Amino acid sequence: MRNAFGGTIQQQGDATSRAGDLEAISALAARRIAIEGVDPEIDGGRFAAKSAVGETFIVEADAFSDGHDKIAVAVCYRAAGESVWQEQRMTYLVNDRWRAELSFNENQLHEYTIIAWRDLFAAWHDEVSKKFAAGQKISLELEEGKRLIEDALSDTERLSGEDQAALKDILSAFALKDEDDDRLALLRSTETVELMRRAGVRTNLTSYERVLEVFVDRTAAAFSAWYELMPRSQSGDVNRHGTFKDVIGKLPYVRDLGFDVLYFPPIHPIGTTNRKGKNNTLTPTADDPGSPYAIGSHEGGHDALHPELGSMEDFLELISAARAHGLEIALDFAIQCSPDHPWIKQHPEWFDWRPDGTIKFAENPPKKYEDIVNVHFYRKALPDLWYALRDIVLFWVDKGVKIFRVDNPHTKPFPFWEWMIGDVRSKHPDVIFLAEAFTRPKVMKRLAKVGYSQSYSYFTWRNEKCELEQYLKELTTEECRHYMRPNFFANTPDINPVFLQHSGRPGFQTRLILAATLAGNYGIYNGFEICEAAPVPGKEEYLNSEKYEIRAWDFDTPDSISWDIKLINRLRREHKALQGFTNLSFYNAWNDNVLFYGKKTEDLTDFILFHVCLDPHHDQHIDFEVPLWELGLGDDASIEVEDLVSGNRFTWHGKYQHLHLDPHYKPYAIWRLVAPGVSA
Amino acid sequence: MRNAFGGTIQQQGDATSRAGDLEAISALAARRIAIEGVDPEIDGGRFAAKSAVGETFIVEADAFSDGHDKIAVAVCYRAAGESVWQEQRMTYLVNDRWRAELSFNENQLHEYTIIAWRDLFAAWHDEVSKKFAAGQKISLELEEGKRLIEDALSDTERLSGEDQAALKDILSAFALKDEDDDRLALLRSTETVELMRRAGVRTNLTSYERVLEVFVDRTAAAFSAWYELMPRSQSGDVNRHGTFKDVIGKLPYVRDLGFDVLYFPPIHPIGTTNRKGKNNTLTPTADDPGSPYAIGSHEGGHDALHPELGSMEDFLELISAARAHGLEIALDFAIQCSPDHPWIKQHPEWFDWRPDGTIKFAENPPKKYEDIVNVHFYRKALPDLWYALRDIVLFWVDKGVKIFRVDNPHTKPFPFWEWMIGDVRSKHPDVIFLAEAFTRPKVMKRLAKVGYSQSYSYFTWRNEKCELEQYLKELTTEECRHYMRPNFFANTPDINPVFLQHSGRPGFQTRLILAATLAGNYGIYNGFEICEAAPVPGKEEYLNSEKYEIRAWDFDTPDSISWDIKLINRLRREHKALQGFTNLSFYNAWNDNVLFYGKKTEDLTDFILFHVCLDPHHDQHIDFEVPLWELGLGDDASIEVEDLVSGNRFTWHGKYQHLHLDPHYKPYAIWRLVAPGVSA
Repeated sequence: MRNAFGGTIQQQGDATSRAGDLEAISALAARRIAIEGVDPEIDGGRFAAKSAVGETFIVEADAFSDGHDKIAVAVCYRAAGESVWQEQRMTYLVNDRWRAELSFNENQLHEYTIIAWRDLFAAWHDEVSKKFAAGQKISLELEEGKRLIEDALSDTERLSGEDQAALKDILSAFALKDEDDDRLALLRSTETVELMRRAGVRTNLTSYERVLEVFVDRTAAAFSAWYELMPRSQSGDVNRHGTFKDVIGKLPYVRDLGFDVLYFPPIHPIGTTNRKGKNNTLTPTADDPGSPYAIGSHEGGHDALHPELGSMEDFLELISAARAHGLEIALDFAIQCSPDHPWIKQHPEWFDWRPDGTIKFAENPPKKYEDIVNVHFYRKALPDLWYALRDIVLFWVDKGVKIFRVDNPHTKPFPFWEWMIGDVRSKHPDVIFLAEAFTRPKVMKRLAKVGYSQSYSYFTWRNEKCELEQYLKELTTEECRHYMRPNFFANTPDINPVFLQHSGRPGFQTRLILAATLAGNYGIYNGFEICEAAPVPGKEEYLNSEKYEIRAWDFDTPDSISWDIKLINRLRREHKALQGFTNLSFYNAWNDNVLFYGKKTEDLTDFILFHVCLDPHHDQHIDFEVPLWELGLGDDASIEVEDLVSGNRFTWHGKYQHLHLDPHYKPYAIWRLVAPGVSA
Repeated sequence: MRNAFGGTIQQQGDATSRAGDLEAISALAARRIAIEGVDPEIDGGRFAAKSAVGETFIVEADAFSDGHDKIAVAVCYRAAGESVWQEQRMTYLVNDRWRAELSFNENQLHEYTIIAWRDLFAAWHDEVSKKFAAGQKISLELEEGKRLIEDALSDTERLSGEDQAALKDILSAFALKDEDDDRLALLRSTETVELMRRAGVRTNLTSYERVLEVFVDRTAAAFSAWYELMPRSQSGDVNRHGTFKDVIGKLPYVRDLGFDVLYFPPIHPIGTTNRKGKNNTLTPTADDPGSPYAIGSHEGGHDALHPELGSMEDFLELISAARAHGLEIALDFAIQCSPDHPWIKQHPEWFDWRPDGTIKFAENPPKKYEDIVNVHFYRKALPDLWYALRDIVLFWVDKGVKIFRVDNPHTKPFPFWEWMIGDVRSKHPDVIFLAEAFTRPKVMKRLAKVGYSQSYSYFTWRNEKCELEQYLKELTTEECRHYMRPNFFANTPDINPVFLQHSGRPGFQTRLILAATLAGNYGIYNGFEICEAAPVPGKEEYLNSEKYEIRAWDFDTPDSISWDIKLINRLRREHKALQGFTNLSFYNAWNDNVLFYGKKTEDLTDFILFHVCLDPHHDQHIDFEVPLWELGLGDDASIEVEDLVSGNRFTWHGKYQHLHLDPHYKPYAIWRLVAPGVSA
């Protein structure tokens, strides 16, 4: 039999006793070249890495053979389901490490793995060159080199007709030359070397043990700006329940601010049993609308709309209108039910019943959430509840919703998410899921591994320079960068950050710039743009929260930071450097109240720097280092700079520069470095 | 059907379309608990970790479930081939990380994996305690707690009779109590909690996806002191070829120095074609014995003995005599052949033939090794050569040799080693292989991964404080600590280190102490004990190397450091702290010429500190920190100290101490800290 490593195994001796041995030997021998340390490889290949259409996807691996052989290494990749592998050669870095940069065009799951082989012609080239340089005789070596070309020619299946002809030409020319020097020149010519690099026999062709996966998302999974509002608060009158039509009227406002995604908390019927009153009280009046998270009533459950918001037709009109404004609607997927949800009667086996015949309501002892109950994912709820929940998502996908922000996913089983997200995306790869999990680090990472496209983060509570640098370094340089994409929300209906409660307007500007430029995805919840921060005293909750009452907003106030929002959203769209996440670098600014960082494209055509003042109260003087070294410039070089806030252009002479930031005037500065040779 | 997660799956709806879904759901749902970050896990479980009989084998893993559930985690382990798993509970550390410490008694391959389950009683205990503390009513909760005990009782298969009885007793007592407080006290009693921890239902019992392996070696794989000599130089007369009988006469000397392993370079017939003369010349005289690495002549190959050394009977007598002296013989396994090796005629297909009908001799262009040729492991040599080489090892194992130092393993295919070592050790788990690979870091690590018990290292070229600390931190704290055990040779026949060529006697004492105490395994090549360092000028080679001529040695010279060798080998045997490798810590000594480090047992009953002077020429004054914090002592505490070189005992008062080392008197100091409460 002919085996994978190009030889013929002849079984000799005691055939029976050696059969098992031979199998083991063959399996091992087929992988002569060590391929290890593949990156990305999440948990031994258990989970897929993430990329996005058009993004650079870097694959690295250690690869080496025994002895002093030369090897060639390639990454093979294909869309899942395709039978043919594409191949791209990897480049040698250092210390037996190889790298390739891929880029995918299709929004779907892809596979990749590594192959390597001994390149005997390259080894021959190296050896004969050393001997020639040492003045040793090389006639035999030249004959051996010729045979390697003949070997290549014998593998007609793999070779193009053009390469076959070229190989034959070399052999003919070789035959016509008598002198060793001439023959050597022929075999070491650039053309021969390049041809043999491509066409040489792949000796001991070895494939990596595992095929790995990368899910290639559409761009919005990696780069998006979210705006969150409550549809019921869009009438402009606290006494009139807002409607989808009211929201349509707000689309120009959101579009003008520069956002891509418009996200609503739940829009389903709200239960009346144990309904919450204003400010999360247990004593609602008849007029109180209740928390939209208490999903389900006699009017329907997760696939129904709250009647006061409008009809399904209205909703579909809103989806279309949003699309016309360049906005995409994101819905909330919150699995809990109000005690009035139709499922409780239809599927009692999906719930946890207590010895007294009641369903346990949600609690985090001693805290109680009397207006909701949780489903149970195992026992008799498996698998029907899983199908039902998946079908809810598919229902809204069918209506045109492709982005879901999922409420508290960490309190539901990981296997459910892995199956549900995988199943939905096998049909609709463009669906995006954002995990609203604020919990322990490994739990948050696991949710990203099992499939979430985006993740809420600790950003909301990282205010100091050292903690921002440390957290961003973790997110952008550690293994999680391969599978977790944070969405930096500056505030949410649940989080009125303590910092913003005391910072005044400069703090809002600061947190906006940080959120929008440190991460690829970011978001704000309405009210942020007018610096709304009135808290329930001593808590991170908003006073008179929209979660429990209808609000009317006036965003045209002197406090508005809409100018900053428009600026930063425009810069994000205009500058490719700002559309990446892991291309973040921190630079030296000798002031602990000022974060100094940059983002750049790999070709350096777009290089943006940020100074952000973390102290919202006091003037800051900042000595800083212009990262001239990133552009290959010396410490004394000059560089052209564009102030992206004012539009001014000027020159920084030398590495050391000084800046003054007055947070009450503008707590940030944004610069574009014009690399020499790059057109302005 | 009843499934792995304790529920009954009922397939509903469109059975055909959902069958695939159901399979996917079931497979995922069976692993509700996330188990990841298992350590050790070499390359996703591709390779076995290493341990030794009686050693502590630490297993760690991240494990967590969704929500706020309490979980229990255990490591399961068994000898490979056994059907029943042993189980040991893991202890919670921090940040969802768990740990267990195992210890194996059998020298063989073992398997391990992780399991975890939701502990509903622990969760109940936590919840009811919070509610009780908050003054909430808990009658229903008490009933729920009782039901958890009833559930446990229903799983009669897993429970011991004793536990069943105890559970029943609790239920009876519960029934007799009317007051909530009394019932709560019963269910929260230490006895109930401990019983339910053991006997409670294992809800959502989850097993880790992979079964991992650990090869448990005998102690000598991890802790051994090697002495290398050339049998042919043991006659005491350069004109008489030494014999195995001469070696027997040297055993008391080696034993008295305190070594465990006596290692010989090849002892097989030596070829005559292209034989090397003295000092690696190409012009041998008729009397020159040739390099023992040019293996094979008409007198036989790798399974034969060089006739001048003696007969097989003599060799067996030597093995026995060594054993009687507490010494074990290690042989060299060097796969290359002299051009006179019988295999060349018997198996021409195992060699690389050139276009002119010759076999290519070994070379590293432009260097040539004319007296040896290499075998070819693939093409027609596969698998017969593999069997033949394995059988050579088994041949010597059969003669009583259980340790092999393998020459240049990095120039032979990794798959061969993986198969051969695995195959030999499946029959003889006590066989130890030492890889003599001095090559690139990842290649050396790969050899350890594929099965080598011990590895030569870069120690020989690490002389400065910072490079020693950096290298040892890599070896003892990075992932390679799980599979690579360095053997720190201070010199070898191939390496006459530049440092020792200039250091004089103090340098030899220094390198001895470092080798013997930084690693578990170490060795010296004879001549080291009398500070032999005459080089081939400008090279790291010994002048008049035994590799090419017979030497006669006189070890009774004034330069001898045998006192130091005896001391350190005795201390290694007496002190458990010195028998570990990864228990190494570096401490602060404010002098860049002095390495200050310690090793201690986990229970602190043995805690040894070393000051080693790296400058062999000049006096050193050292301010250093006694690591009192390791013993839980404050900076001002006093501690009893034993000087293990002089035997003196005294007290260090406070953390900061001073030491003077004169390298010409003694370039090292060794201290035992007597921890308070530990008997002296």
